[in-house]
Amino acid sequence: MKPIQVGLLGIGVVGTGTFNVLQRNQAEIQRRAGRGIEITMVADLDTARAQAAVGPNVKVVNDARAVIANPDIDIVIELIGGYGIAKQLVLEAIAAGKHVVTANKALLAVHGTEIFAAASAKGVMVAFEAAVAGGIPIIKALREGLTANRVQWIAGIINGTTNFILSEMRDKGLDFDVVLKEAQRLGYAEADPTFDIEGVDAAHKATIMSAIAFGIPVQFDKAHVEGITKLGAADIKYAEQLGYRIKLLGITKRTAGGIELRVHPTLIPAKRLIANVEGAMNAVVVQGDAVGTTLYYGKGAGSEPTASAVIADLVDITRLHTADAAQRVPHLAFQPDAMSDTPILPMDQVVTSYYLRLRVADEAGVLAKVTGILAEAGISIDAVLQREADEVSGEDGTQTDVIILTHDCVEAKMNAAMAQMQALPTVLAPITRIRKEELA
Amino acid sequence: MKPIQVGLLGIGVVGTGTFNVLQRNQAEIQRRAGRGIEITMVADLDTARAQAAVGPNVKVVNDARAVIANPDIDIVIELIGGYGIAKQLVLEAIAAGKHVVTANKALLAVHGTEIFAAASAKGVMVAFEAAVAGGIPIIKALREGLTANRVQWIAGIINGTTNFILSEMRDKGLDFDVVLKEAQRLGYAEADPTFDIEGVDAAHKATIMSAIAFGIPVQFDKAHVEGITKLGAADIKYAEQLGYRIKLLGITKRTAGGIELRVHPTLIPAKRLIANVEGAMNAVVVQGDAVGTTLYYGKGAGSEPTASAVIADLVDITRLHTADAAQRVPHLAFQPDAMSDTPILPMDQVVTSYYLRLRVADEAGVLAKVTGILAEAGISIDAVLQREADEVSGEDGTQTDVIILTHDCVEAKMNAAMAQMQALPTVLAPITRIRKEELA
Repeated sequence: MKPIQVGLLGIGVVGTGTFNVLQRNQAEIQRRAGRGIEITMVADLDTARAQAAVGPNVKVVNDARAVIANPDIDIVIELIGGYGIAKQLVLEAIAAGKHVVTANKALLAVHGTEIFAAASAKGVMVAFEAAVAGGIPIIKALREGLTANRVQWIAGIINGTTNFILSEMRDKGLDFDVVLKEAQRLGYAEADPTFDIEGVDAAHKATIMSAIAFGIPVQFDKAHVEGITKLGAADIKYAEQLGYRIKLLGITKRTAGGIELRVHPTLIPAKRLIANVEGAMNAVVVQGDAVGTTLYYGKGAGSEPTASAVIADLVDITRLHTADAAQRVPHLAFQPDAMSDTPILPMDQVVTSYYLRLRVADEAGVLAKVTGILAEAGISIDAVLQREADEVSGEDGTQTDVIILTHDCVEAKMNAAMAQMQALPTVLAPITRIRKEELA
Repeated sequence: MKPIQVGLLGIGVVGTGTFNVLQRNQAEIQRRAGRGIEITMVADLDTARAQAAVGPNVKVVNDARAVIANPDIDIVIELIGGYGIAKQLVLEAIAAGKHVVTANKALLAVHGTEIFAAASAKGVMVAFEAAVAGGIPIIKALREGLTANRVQWIAGIINGTTNFILSEMRDKGLDFDVVLKEAQRLGYAEADPTFDIEGVDAAHKATIMSAIAFGIPVQFDKAHVEGITKLGAADIKYAEQLGYRIKLLGITKRTAGGIELRVHPTLIPAKRLIANVEGAMNAVVVQGDAVGTTLYYGKGAGSEPTASAVIADLVDITRLHTADAAQRVPHLAFQPDAMSDTPILPMDQVVTSYYLRLRVADEAGVLAKVTGILAEAGISIDAVLQREADEVSGEDGTQTDVIILTHDCVEAKMNAAMAQMQALPTVLAPITRIRKEELA
């Protein structure tokens, strides 16, 4: 049988990895897929670099539309990224009857509903394993491996840059700014790291997971997004003393009131497996009602790990494109006519527990005032850690840190209590609030 | 569309779980699969118990062949277990044109080649996600999620009973026999635990993983199988002091000389994620050339976790049974005409590193003799731990333990050196040898 012909739009790090792995493991992939899979055409603005990457036998053009218009191309891989031209090209490829593979989490988290609808109408597949957690086959696990389950919640370390930074902060006791510079020097963080460190990239991925876990549309605009830029080395140290690690988690959870969708630094018990995921690695915990807790771990980024996911999608499409379209794996795991309209829960209605750190004047009665406010709000305290004044740097013993772990309460109540505490004259700096999850 | 109709052979713990989860999550599963999936007929020798489990609306018979003969049944689930009647019934179901879902690892590890050939000839699917690692979708990850990769090795904690026992031995410093009794009392070990504690169950699962990772036939008879019955609390303690944990691993690895396929207790660095998998949980590490290291973790047994895997297979068959048979997911991940005949490497040709514990007379020159034998054999030593005589129980200071970690050497060479050491008059008990893997 004639090989499946693939056109590649954008040949950067992941595109080059995809081309190389397809070449290197050609025989093995064909033995699995039952059919050869070949990249026969590449579009990139830098045609010279592209031609150098793929060698003389692959047609290189600078116009992506020439790939889409090529009637021999069965599948188009979109590796351009972003919402702009990438969206246009994906929609054009679908309109031309091409199946699409993309690693573009931003595009799908924001415009997925429109794109998947277009694909379903045209009877083609848009596959996106590479969009979440790189080489870890988490989309497949959620969409196919766990189909028996009502998913209860998902919590994932789904941004390698921030996990690298947090691991280094803990290992070396350094503050965020110092470690960020080191991460940039080592290539773990980009020159403009905003999307990573502010939690936006993780929120794109969490949005996609929420949709396929719960059968709801992608709703990135409803996600609560909070990064790691305000974390201090002190918080990581205090968390450790209390038996916790701080990780940037993407969380989505089914509750009676709606679906939670949130990205923020989170205290998790140090003994949990996911708390021990270090460096740039990713891991996702999925809790299902039948299967219980499962965890998936691996490299969340990089050339060949991401290529691994892109190629798995190529093989899946090779297999499924002849199947009854009504029974292929649905884009968002649930059939398009069986989606749910369960709302995303506003953040102030989310119930969780909290770590609070208050820089206070080291004088009598401060703790009583603070805990009095919490008691009055009906927020119960799980643990308190008051540092000796001399352990707190800088202020000659006139200031100290009070750390409070609370039991579960609704976020709105905590916001109100925090405003009251912040207004106390003995609270000397903005209160640090980190949410806590037991993941049990 | 009419629901897919499923017949169930054998309704014990997993069968009941499968029925219950299918009922409970009926709507959610149909929203995913695009079609209802219903167990409409059950065969079990104990028809009264079976009828009680499924209620009055499901037909219960005591003759499995009545299920197979029912023309309305699309898929047969085999949950009888063992090699005997189960094999016969699976082959008859295939002959009758039914797709089959089975959790029977023993059957597939021994008779898989015959069964898959029969299924391919008849154009039906035999799905077996539940046969390895319970609810963890590891078959799907290997067969579909990692299709881009040349798999390099797999190492898994794939028997919950032995992992529970080893975790308890380490936590409580107890010996094997004591913990086994406790595990039996708690239901983590069966009354006859032989298959678990001797490594046979893990070897069945490792055999299946070796086939789908490397595209070779199932060859259980060539697996090296070694259980945990000879491990003492002392070994676990010494391993800990050296920075390792002892786990019963199923390992399969691609080497220049052939495929390694082995189950044995293994020292692994305590800092590896898989070293921290405790209790009855399972985890599998897969190393691929493109993706790098990935890990999959979850419940490896139990009613609903196993049902989760069985139902995922039902959904997959619902999706794929209309696809071109030549491009469905092949039973053993590789197309039947593209299997490899790479041989399984005999154990004495396997290269690994070792932990040795020698109970020796506490007198001068013993260590020199032992290390001299290793040096002469060309086996280099990584670390030595000699206990003070008073730390070793029992023998009034006249005996002591010498623990040696070696670098890599071929097993045949180690066997010869061990025979020489064992013959020394100062070596007072059978030498304990545990293989060591860095899993890096």
